[in-house]
Amino acid sequence: MGRSRYEEIAEALRQAIRSGAHPLGSRLPSESDLAARWGASRGTVRQAVALLASEGLIGSRQGARRVVLRQERRQSFQQLNSFAQWARAMGCEVSSRILERTVRPATDEEAARLDAEPGGEVLYVLRLRHLDGEPVMVERTVYAEWVAPAVLALPEDCVSIMDSIAERADVVAHYGEHLIDAVAAGSEDARLLRVRRASPLLRQRHLTYTAAGRAIEWTDDRYRAGSVVFNVMNSAAAAPLERHAGPDVAG
Amino acid sequence: MGRSRYEEIAEALRQAIRSGAHPLGSRLPSESDLAARWGASRGTVRQAVALLASEGLIGSRQGARRVVLRQERRQSFQQLNSFAQWARAMGCEVSSRILERTVRPATDEEAARLDAEPGGEVLYVLRLRHLDGEPVMVERTVYAEWVAPAVLALPEDCVSIMDSIAERADVVAHYGEHLIDAVAAGSEDARLLRVRRASPLLRQRHLTYTAAGRAIEWTDDRYRAGSVVFNVMNSAAAAPLERHAGPDVAG
Repeated sequence: MGRSRYEEIAEALRQAIRSGAHPLGSRLPSESDLAARWGASRGTVRQAVALLASEGLIGSRQGARRVVLRQERRQSFQQLNSFAQWARAMGCEVSSRILERTVRPATDEEAARLDAEPGGEVLYVLRLRHLDGEPVMVERTVYAEWVAPAVLALPEDCVSIMDSIAERADVVAHYGEHLIDAVAAGSEDARLLRVRRASPLLRQRHLTYTAAGRAIEWTDDRYRAGSVVFNVMNSAAAAPLERHAGPDVAG
Repeated sequence: MGRSRYEEIAEALRQAIRSGAHPLGSRLPSESDLAARWGASRGTVRQAVALLASEGLIGSRQGARRVVLRQERRQSFQQLNSFAQWARAMGCEVSSRILERTVRPATDEEAARLDAEPGGEVLYVLRLRHLDGEPVMVERTVYAEWVAPAVLALPEDCVSIMDSIAERADVVAHYGEHLIDAVAAGSEDARLLRVRRASPLLRQRHLTYTAAGRAIEWTDDRYRAGSVVFNVMNSAAAAPLERHAGPDVAG
């Protein structure tokens, strides 16, 4: 609807790259081959290819057959975004299911992370997230007590808890601290993500705060290896990241 | 030398936390117990504890026994730093060994990443990095042809290639793009890092540029799981990260 021809071709190429039809490091067909395949003009194909290059999916060298530089779903840390916001921006179909919600006393660590009274109550939520129909992430979150009622009121298949509690209860995540490492899948992880026990998972733990610095949640997200790549840009000077985007590092 | 008593105690506590003597989520001994152990005044111990709290290693709640929040070596992405710079800032002993240096034609992917001529030459370097005497990271880098002579001239045990070529050849890394994911250890990884094959590794690929946007290197770094945690902060607004540090998220 309202999408131009070159955008349609770009989207088809994106899907083909993501599916592995054009593997990482391989070259795309030539512009004339692509034009023949889609019954489009070379100018239209050139526009589609330029769009993918501007996204960093393929190389930027003109004239040559373009090299595939990414096929991964890439998650940027330039901004604090919910998983659902990110997935939709990527054009992925996203779904979620809450598997468990338990109100229980905070562990010492959880209380310290959330800056809560030791032994005070928190809401533990276990959730499984899907992208394009595949289970890709297990999320284990403890919500601070003041947020718990809003989270308990949400339906099981709520796609974004953060977006929903922002809308319904005015609990707005303003900034986050993220800890990223690799871990071996435990038995619950393995069962939910359909991988072998001890296979590699990308873990992102994060603490999310309101603008006033009040802790909302402490989360342990585990992604199936190969399902997502985290993307960070930085520079030698302690300056806003946005100012240092180079010719090849769009997105 | 010139280090005050409270800094000595803070350093001993840091080491004890890092070694696992005080596990994540456990509580430190009380101030009076710590004072007795070090034959120091409670005021001195309180200063040491406040220092660790300001670093985010332990909880910030006063009066209570402090909870251990981190034992990991944490690598921030606020600024572009070399591994050696980061390790030294953490107080770790760092050493490195170049295991292989080979000039060879670039693959299609490498050429596209480095924005070089397809089939042009690059310098491939395999390196093993140690922290506090343990092998923690395998680094596989391709350097652009224009940088190769400077890298070939370095000694095998050069601790920081980036710092050395900045000093000697005026090749200065100005910004970087980082791709972070989890992978299973291959056989070379497993042998060098002394882990089992297929065990989880944290991978950081990065492309480093000069201020003028010229690609210097394309690197694949693989960290043993548990050896390091990457740390990123961000906010809902696309604004400098520095402005959003909260009360509990120092460092």
